[in-house]
Amino acid sequence: MAGAALWRRGAAWLRGCRGKEGKAPGVSRGCAGCREVVRTCERYAVRRLPFARPAERDVAFFERLMPGRVLAGQPEVEPFNVDWLKSVRGCSQLVLKPQTTAEVSQVLRYCYERNLAVNPQGGNTGLVGGSVPVFDEIILSTALMNQIISFDKVSGILVCQAGCVLERLSEYVEEQGFIMPLDLGAKGSCHIGGNVATNAGGLRLLRYGSLRGTVLGLEVVLADGSALDCLTSLRKDNTGYDLKQLFIGSEGTLGVITAVSILCPQKPKAVNVAFLGCQSFAKVLETFTTCRAMLGEILSAYEFMDEKCMELVERHLKLSSPVADSPFYVLIETSGSNTTHDEEKLNNFLERAMTSGLVTDGTVATDDKKIKVLWSLRERITEALTHEGYVYKYDISLPVEKLYDLVTDMRARLGQSAKNVVGYGHLGDGNLHLNITAESYSHSLLDAIEPFVYEWTARCSGSISAEHGLGFKKRQFIQYSKPRKAVLLMQQFKAMLDPKGILNPYKTLPSAPERSTG
Amino acid sequence: MAGAALWRRGAAWLRGCRGKEGKAPGVSRGCAGCREVVRTCERYAVRRLPFARPAERDVAFFERLMPGRVLAGQPEVEPFNVDWLKSVRGCSQLVLKPQTTAEVSQVLRYCYERNLAVNPQGGNTGLVGGSVPVFDEIILSTALMNQIISFDKVSGILVCQAGCVLERLSEYVEEQGFIMPLDLGAKGSCHIGGNVATNAGGLRLLRYGSLRGTVLGLEVVLADGSALDCLTSLRKDNTGYDLKQLFIGSEGTLGVITAVSILCPQKPKAVNVAFLGCQSFAKVLETFTTCRAMLGEILSAYEFMDEKCMELVERHLKLSSPVADSPFYVLIETSGSNTTHDEEKLNNFLERAMTSGLVTDGTVATDDKKIKVLWSLRERITEALTHEGYVYKYDISLPVEKLYDLVTDMRARLGQSAKNVVGYGHLGDGNLHLNITAESYSHSLLDAIEPFVYEWTARCSGSISAEHGLGFKKRQFIQYSKPRKAVLLMQQFKAMLDPKGILNPYKTLPSAPERSTG
Repeated sequence: MAGAALWRRGAAWLRGCRGKEGKAPGVSRGCAGCREVVRTCERYAVRRLPFARPAERDVAFFERLMPGRVLAGQPEVEPFNVDWLKSVRGCSQLVLKPQTTAEVSQVLRYCYERNLAVNPQGGNTGLVGGSVPVFDEIILSTALMNQIISFDKVSGILVCQAGCVLERLSEYVEEQGFIMPLDLGAKGSCHIGGNVATNAGGLRLLRYGSLRGTVLGLEVVLADGSALDCLTSLRKDNTGYDLKQLFIGSEGTLGVITAVSILCPQKPKAVNVAFLGCQSFAKVLETFTTCRAMLGEILSAYEFMDEKCMELVERHLKLSSPVADSPFYVLIETSGSNTTHDEEKLNNFLERAMTSGLVTDGTVATDDKKIKVLWSLRERITEALTHEGYVYKYDISLPVEKLYDLVTDMRARLGQSAKNVVGYGHLGDGNLHLNITAESYSHSLLDAIEPFVYEWTARCSGSISAEHGLGFKKRQFIQYSKPRKAVLLMQQFKAMLDPKGILNPYKTLPSAPERSTG
Repeated sequence: MAGAALWRRGAAWLRGCRGKEGKAPGVSRGCAGCREVVRTCERYAVRRLPFARPAERDVAFFERLMPGRVLAGQPEVEPFNVDWLKSVRGCSQLVLKPQTTAEVSQVLRYCYERNLAVNPQGGNTGLVGGSVPVFDEIILSTALMNQIISFDKVSGILVCQAGCVLERLSEYVEEQGFIMPLDLGAKGSCHIGGNVATNAGGLRLLRYGSLRGTVLGLEVVLADGSALDCLTSLRKDNTGYDLKQLFIGSEGTLGVITAVSILCPQKPKAVNVAFLGCQSFAKVLETFTTCRAMLGEILSAYEFMDEKCMELVERHLKLSSPVADSPFYVLIETSGSNTTHDEEKLNNFLERAMTSGLVTDGTVATDDKKIKVLWSLRERITEALTHEGYVYKYDISLPVEKLYDLVTDMRARLGQSAKNVVGYGHLGDGNLHLNITAESYSHSLLDAIEPFVYEWTARCSGSISAEHGLGFKKRQFIQYSKPRKAVLLMQQFKAMLDPKGILNPYKTLPSAPERSTG
């Protein structure tokens, strides 16, 4: 059997990754670039929980269940073990690629019985280490669950499998006169199931709201393999508790999302983007309140970035700024149903903003191509940052007035020990992306950043994760944004829905304090 | 002690309401009009669950806790026992009016220990019997929890206690240039806490989305008296599971909402309302798709009513139709930031609708007063219906194409046995209000309607409660809209959060099947 054969090849490697329990392996044979990533279990000294270890008979079972869709052993499995940022790395030996909900059900029923841990994985674009294993969790990939189930052209309701890539869905619904209610930089890779599992925010939230409003239904397979069919296509349904909400944003720890029903807004007839330079963050804020009042219902995005971000996209990606050098840049998007009206609103606003000195330079795009160019300046900051070395990423919700103070304070605090401290994000939603770069990871720099960044955020009643989730990297800091009682309740929900804890272990919820002897 | 004295006066009455356990009382001394309402426990033959019965020492405890804010015994308590529709009636002897979360906590801690059942009550405007007791549950009224805690003029985020009346909140935020994200006919009485507890939909959902998106935070007291503080004021927060969602729409069965944080949209600078006559339901639908495309982002409501509804508001409320008699009427509201643009969009649409024969008559209002008059035709249908006798109310989500077929089918089915069968509702959200009137309640008419109406809805994959909730009246029918697995999970959540089941018993979730002997 192919899977079993592969398994045997990988078996030597399998014994390596044991965290504190065993000796870490020497050099592993991974994908290019992956092998340099330090294993999560080593860098963070995590203790493996007492799950069963996948064995040959398990591979054989899965291979019978989905022949040819089981990857076992190196090197095929390696890319699934490492996150997009190359910041965390698991040592799973087994990737399963189900095509149907029934297969997911059978996989989980089996794993539940055997006490095998499972790491659900979508497009693996997460930024907090939630999408890759920490140890040898079996990776359950939604890559082959990519079918559109239905689309209603009257209501704009799309029903599809969890593994559909966001950009493909966007293209599909745009052909029918609609758009997806969310858009994000990772759209070319991320899966809609992963978007929902992490409650992704992104670039359109200001206008179309969060997935908690636009996701109408979900199909989920629970830890024991039972399927929960709440895949309705209704705008309103008040029959009992809204169970699907619990799975939105639970990062695969409560169930595996297998299908999604989502409300798509109509495609706007006119889209305009303005890219502006501001001389201070105070002007960025004043520009926001002014444009919100003057653009009203057509405002669909208000993004900002500082000059450091612009420097990085220019240097690493060879993009060029369309406006004169400024301490801050703002990207404003309008989406509406009437080109003339929208342009008039935008022009009125721009005139006001220029004459009152809110902005000092600016450019406007109305055609698709130029709009994409302007958006890429903002969307590709994340990518530009990865060229800098190791990136410490923070995704913070704050009252807008205080949004940039955190960047300034952090810059002063770290001084020369950081290469760069940059701030950008979804200002309209009060969401700052604070990023700190250094040549490589160091415990000491991390200690200078954390818990300072979380304490600072908590003092302003902010959230330590606005949209990225907690995943592996932030889970121990949940108490900075949630009271003890809330965390206890979350743990009760987890225990109720996944009593053996096999679903995405080591993620989202804090681990129990380690006992001194082990 | 005043409370205890009142209690003694009411004590004889107390012994009456025992459902199957004891003899029903003769004539009760209630508020005017209330005494005619048949007790829920009699009409529906409900069995009282084995909660403790409130006794004098309990009243004394509560009176010490909140002196002067305890109502015990008749006749003060009677209005709290009967719903707005005068269709269900409990026999509680005790109303508590806490002012603070700490008081709610103390009340619930006490009730939990004593095994006393509690019925949380807001403005008592619910339509499914969820807001009044069935037996002698202690009524926990939010009437005195009516303080605004904070309002941020930059973000539009309002934080307030649960007992604030929606209309007062609307007035308050409008003075600051914002509006509440929800609006409904009952706004003059309903409490925001009740709105959230029932996930109220209403007239603005089409534009501003559901409370699941606009409610940013909640403070909730759980059954055992512990408080859960998730009262954040952040647009985005992905730190762990979104616990507040479980309480939104749980109808007071999982916890008592004590405070709400909610995102208010900016007040539109221009509002227009068009009231139109259509010759068929097919034209109503075509008018919808046309106006959605032409009005785009400024469309804020699309409501419809049939000619029977118009007849009833004319007859009972002396309102007059502003347009020529038509089989169907449509109310379209636009809300935008630019008067000239909005009027141009609306006029273009109306011209298209008239010339293409979609609508045969219409009127437009741009000033507040006339707008209110037009809205009252739609908003006051519920009130007009109560003048007809007994009203069987159904609140159904359906694919819009099939929305009115249910009314036609029901009308044909019931023939002369019903006085009226009318249909109206939030067409833009796929939400039909089907109402059937008769001189008085009868089991046989109910049997002709149910389960037919639920089976019809289930065949179309609709929801048997779009926005009203399940409350007391619909809870046994949940399986028409939710699979068995979902109901089981809901019951597990209930058991986890309220192990003794003291919070709003007999509501939302179906009762366990009765044993044949008892």
